[in-house]
Amino acid sequence: MYEFGRFFLPGPTEVRPEILAAQTHPTIGHRTPELAALLSEADRHLRPIFGTTRPVFISTSSGTGMMEASVRNAVRRRALCLVNGAFSARYRDLVLGCGRECEVYEVPLGEAHEPEEVERRLRAGGFDALTVVHSETSSGVLNPIAEIAAAVRSAERATGEEILVLVDGVSSVGGMLVETDEWGVDFLLTGSQKALALPPGLAFGTPSERLLERAATLAGRGLYFDLLEYAQHWEEHQTTATPAVTLLYALSAQLRHIVAETMEARAARHLAMAESCWSWAEARGRRWGLRVMAPEGRRSPTVTALALPPERKGSVVAARLKERGYTLATGYGAHRDQALRIGHMGDHTVLELELLLAELESVLGEVE
Amino acid sequence: MYEFGRFFLPGPTEVRPEILAAQTHPTIGHRTPELAALLSEADRHLRPIFGTTRPVFISTSSGTGMMEASVRNAVRRRALCLVNGAFSARYRDLVLGCGRECEVYEVPLGEAHEPEEVERRLRAGGFDALTVVHSETSSGVLNPIAEIAAAVRSAERATGEEILVLVDGVSSVGGMLVETDEWGVDFLLTGSQKALALPPGLAFGTPSERLLERAATLAGRGLYFDLLEYAQHWEEHQTTATPAVTLLYALSAQLRHIVAETMEARAARHLAMAESCWSWAEARGRRWGLRVMAPEGRRSPTVTALALPPERKGSVVAARLKERGYTLATGYGAHRDQALRIGHMGDHTVLELELLLAELESVLGEVE
Repeated sequence: MYEFGRFFLPGPTEVRPEILAAQTHPTIGHRTPELAALLSEADRHLRPIFGTTRPVFISTSSGTGMMEASVRNAVRRRALCLVNGAFSARYRDLVLGCGRECEVYEVPLGEAHEPEEVERRLRAGGFDALTVVHSETSSGVLNPIAEIAAAVRSAERATGEEILVLVDGVSSVGGMLVETDEWGVDFLLTGSQKALALPPGLAFGTPSERLLERAATLAGRGLYFDLLEYAQHWEEHQTTATPAVTLLYALSAQLRHIVAETMEARAARHLAMAESCWSWAEARGRRWGLRVMAPEGRRSPTVTALALPPERKGSVVAARLKERGYTLATGYGAHRDQALRIGHMGDHTVLELELLLAELESVLGEVE
Repeated sequence: MYEFGRFFLPGPTEVRPEILAAQTHPTIGHRTPELAALLSEADRHLRPIFGTTRPVFISTSSGTGMMEASVRNAVRRRALCLVNGAFSARYRDLVLGCGRECEVYEVPLGEAHEPEEVERRLRAGGFDALTVVHSETSSGVLNPIAEIAAAVRSAERATGEEILVLVDGVSSVGGMLVETDEWGVDFLLTGSQKALALPPGLAFGTPSERLLERAATLAGRGLYFDLLEYAQHWEEHQTTATPAVTLLYALSAQLRHIVAETMEARAARHLAMAESCWSWAEARGRRWGLRVMAPEGRRSPTVTALALPPERKGSVVAARLKERGYTLATGYGAHRDQALRIGHMGDHTVLELELLLAELESVLGEVE
């Protein structure tokens, strides 16, 4: 039996049936006015969601693809990579995989990065970019991007070096208010299947002017993720390669939905869901040794990771919930059994989340 | 009014309603046994379509993405790029865009490459790869891949150099019988929206063992198109990054359909449609100065480009057909008004194609 409102992975996020249905639009050519209009409208709706007046490019890829685009187009020689979980580690791997160097500023899973430490490291010199994950989906930690970007600018003034700020916003964009322009972010990216609550297969990224200027000086950008190619085609509301058209129809329908809800209301709803999770963990989950992994003040409004005591296994709890029709995630990768992760982004209501928490409580009581 | 059977672009190919509907499957996680089963079944069905016993990797990208994968993983320093139209030119651009060198063996639009000339050029030495498009969608020319690959092997023996054969099969794979293993092709790729008649957004590629060995020695492969990452994840029926899951459901449904039809019958149907086009052009189209652009013996079974005399404009004819509910393509890019292109691949019947040709004839009579 399938019922919307019981699927709480921290990505992919449950997609509403009407958005899935939008994918059934009959085939159209991708060099048509109809598709250009679709891309143009999407760009217009995406800019405020990204907190920018810049174009937002659409890529047929996962978020990792846009991550690679940011590295190939922005990192000249050496980046400072901020690592605090699986997805920020992927950013580091990509910097290395694209033949660049990096210094890693790593903090343990469940912690955020300190702007002061970022500045201290950058002041040593020799960096031309910084990579950071906004909302680390493997831990539910929210990094202070505004403060980190300010630290970068301070280091830029001190060293005279241009340091581009590359931000993975995979579980933040569309889930909370982000301010690309105001914060001074040079690249912000996300994938379709997280807070935008779309099927996977599209990624989005917005580059700064100075990033595009840097890109023009970098060789070997390739074609598929060449942001200068994107910029050129974007002016005519075209894509560099054939886009995933049926997913663009889903995007169009969902962006209209988000505009109607307003991004402010969407962000408030996600925060209310997050607060429900946190207060449940404090008031009820504590009884079974559960605690919110992220420290107060550094908690993502879209993902909560609940650390488990050794005697409770994430895989066992998740399997029990699955039997009751509910889906949530265990810890990520090697941390599988040490945590549970709940995605509270997309189109679920606070009530739907609270029903999940009640069910979780019942399962915890059972396996006691 | 929408009716299946009137859309004849040479990609995207018209997708059957039941395949579009397969995309509405409810959200599932992409690290689940359900998705692994989907990927495993797809691989099993794709191998015979590719004429190989090797794994066929699935990428969330357009065919251009897999083209870039082949360059980043296979071209060490310098390739011989065979150019005879827009898509083979893209392969050349990609070689250069990824920071490799190339020599271009170009023949005019509408012509095929000669294996003898390929061998002569390669014997000069200094090449480690060759790029070629099997069915050039901009002209309807079919390159003799078996003979070209044999020429490469002969040059390999003469020079002692390893030269990888990289083939864009974008409008051939799934449309005709291809023999990756037998021909000695090191990489064969296609996109979902051509002869496989799926929505765009997926690409497929199968690398040889020696290509993967070469890849292991090449730096800067990145992550998104790193074929070694693909190979490693493929063993567990996983993908390196989040795949376009709803498109995978469409793929699954369409592959079952192709298996049921059999690839042999599918290829025969496409060839029958092509022969209908060619004999129509000879018997009827000649009256208005139309001729099949590709020379006999070098005609693609999936795309026919009809060259137009100067007094007839491709855009005008296509627009008239559009008014009657039929979609075909003009010439590609700068050749827009000098040709019409008909895609006869995917799931259309010979009868549907003949109705298009009757309509085309009526339009040509009108604008006389």
